[in-house]
Amino acid sequence: SRAMSKTYKIAVIAGDGIGKEVTPWAQKALEKAAQGVADFEYEPFDLGAERYLRDGAILPDDELERIKKTDAILLGAVGDPRIKAGILERGLLLKLRFALDQYVNLRPSKLYKGVTSPLANPGDIDFVVVREGTEGLYCGAGGAVRRGTPQEVATEVSINTAYGVERVVRYAFELAMKRRKHITLVHKKNVLVNAGDMWQRIVDKVGEEYPEVTHDYSHIDAATIFLVSNPSKFDVILTDNLFGDILTDEAGAVVGGVGYSASGCINASNEYPSMFEPIHGSAPDIAGKGIANPTAAILSAAMLLEHLGFDDAAKKIHKAVEADIEELGSTERTTAQVGEDILARI
Amino acid sequence: SRAMSKTYKIAVIAGDGIGKEVTPWAQKALEKAAQGVADFEYEPFDLGAERYLRDGAILPDDELERIKKTDAILLGAVGDPRIKAGILERGLLLKLRFALDQYVNLRPSKLYKGVTSPLANPGDIDFVVVREGTEGLYCGAGGAVRRGTPQEVATEVSINTAYGVERVVRYAFELAMKRRKHITLVHKKNVLVNAGDMWQRIVDKVGEEYPEVTHDYSHIDAATIFLVSNPSKFDVILTDNLFGDILTDEAGAVVGGVGYSASGCINASNEYPSMFEPIHGSAPDIAGKGIANPTAAILSAAMLLEHLGFDDAAKKIHKAVEADIEELGSTERTTAQVGEDILARI
Ligand SMILES: CC(C)[C@H](C(=O)O)[C@@H](O)C(=O)O
Ligand SMILES: CC(C)[C@H](C(=O)O)[C@@H](O)C(=O)O
Repeated sequence: SRAMSKTYKIAVIAGDGIGKEVTPWAQKALEKAAQGVADFEYEPFDLGAERYLRDGAILPDDELERIKKTDAILLGAVGDPRIKAGILERGLLLKLRFALDQYVNLRPSKLYKGVTSPLANPGDIDFVVVREGTEGLYCGAGGAVRRGTPQEVATEVSINTAYGVERVVRYAFELAMKRRKHITLVHKKNVLVNAGDMWQRIVDKVGEEYPEVTHDYSHIDAATIFLVSNPSKFDVILTDNLFGDILTDEAGAVVGGVGYSASGCINASNEYPSMFEPIHGSAPDIAGKGIANPTAAILSAAMLLEHLGFDDAAKKIHKAVEADIEELGSTERTTAQVGEDILARI
Repeated sequence: SRAMSKTYKIAVIAGDGIGKEVTPWAQKALEKAAQGVADFEYEPFDLGAERYLRDGAILPDDELERIKKTDAILLGAVGDPRIKAGILERGLLLKLRFALDQYVNLRPSKLYKGVTSPLANPGDIDFVVVREGTEGLYCGAGGAVRRGTPQEVATEVSINTAYGVERVVRYAFELAMKRRKHITLVHKKNVLVNAGDMWQRIVDKVGEEYPEVTHDYSHIDAATIFLVSNPSKFDVILTDNLFGDILTDEAGAVVGGVGYSASGCINASNEYPSMFEPIHGSAPDIAGKGIANPTAAILSAAMLLEHLGFDDAAKKIHKAVEADIEELGSTERTTAQVGEDILARI
């Protein structure tokens, strides 16, 4: 930990629905955990469904430029059922991931003591999905001809580069060294032979530099089985953009709900700010009631601290969250109660 | 049911490993259930890993032509860890699906009484996945440049046509009419906007012709959550080739293992034979021990009978399997014992 405190500029995109309710608690946790070590200055950005519905703006260039100058981003959740699927996803969330070159989508899954898993025998679940964030089927390369006619053809193109794969593979091996030293590559290399073969070759090659780390391979379909039948077998799951999306939602369910899962969209070379968020959405059904669980948002603050190098401060949050869930996880509490309870333990 | 019995020619690709052990039981069940209604004549095809390792052949043209002339195909399982991923999958399994235009991949998931689900509270699980079988990311359109160099780029292209989507959508609506009249379209239309939008438009359009059938939509990531948190909400899941692959394996796990799941690759316009198989693989680890469970293979025989229009005969198998699992599902039995036990009830 550092002796002198420095001021970090955090872009805050609280977003929509419960995003606005949980994000203040992430900020409070950040402050308290980093007291005396780092100071934070916040720059709020009014982005998301509400903004879009109000003035049609999704992510104006000058706002993106201002976000680029911050040290990190806290995101709540964006989305509203009135907006057609794809507009905010591609125009805001994915645009941020791509423009800020956030090539590591880091998604830890942990079954906390005190949380009930839907699995009868979950075992000890504690793994991290390292999902590639800037390539694959998410790059927006696709199109349609003769739209709306019986002759319509629609394509989606997955673009994968050795450059893009190798950097995220290296990240996964470094992470595995700090954990239980095992990586499972997930792909569908028996069907997607071009991309799958490249992923496997790069994992094999980089793996030679990490003799202590073992690695194996699972097809995406088999991986969805293991998440249900034997999730404790995983340590680091390394996968592409789409498979990572799918696996992390299933993983969130297996550890008792997306209310306990945070994620980071990380530019590991630090050219641009990284972004931290709970994996849940804006949840319009419970928005405004003050009952959203802020735990995942608070955990995203811990990920932000880790990313900036404040491991001790991050640990304070993790410990507080673990203790809170173990003791009070099954009680019904308001957003503010959970927030205060966790804060009191930091 | 028909008065006169006709002889149907069935291509049998028992394949590798446990495929060869379970397929004879599928044939016996077929015979017995259809006694007096239909006769079967079998044409065995020596295809799969063993054949490939012996003489390098995967699916010779003349054998494919002979398969085309049969009335249906029973497939066991193919595969061997010594063969590089993709060779048999693309050269044999997918080649059959594509050459025989098997555009409906039909995959029922049912939690039988007597089977333990890995879920603590599974509820009543009984849904069918209607997976498109001849398009999407499975069409083999992809490539690589500068393979093996740091400048390598690998692509995979998902091709989707209104023609291909509409026919499988119609199949799903017809199927829903015979069931609980609800369809869930699964896609990722917020990211894969071209293909996803086309799927949704076609479902909406065809849906107008089936006012009794309700339909909703779920992103693939959310669907993997529901399969764990609330699988009984599904009746008919309609989805593309890749998402169907992923969801059906997860579904297999949720209903207590792939040992109880069969599937059909169906050419619903009957130009070419349809293919029926257990969803499990060749399982080299237990092959040769005589302990593989033939239940899924026997269920694939029931699907074959249904496809040929012998609903009563199919029902006999379903009832026998249900009774067997309920009474003896938890006992350890050999392949032959399970086979005999089920046969005795048909
Ligand atoms: C909202 C959507 C674009 C996004 C994704 O698919 O990556 C979400 O599902 C996620 O996992 O962060
Ligand atoms: C073996 C493979 C090509 C196949 C698929 O992906 O369709 C299998 O996983 C399946 O689900 O039938």
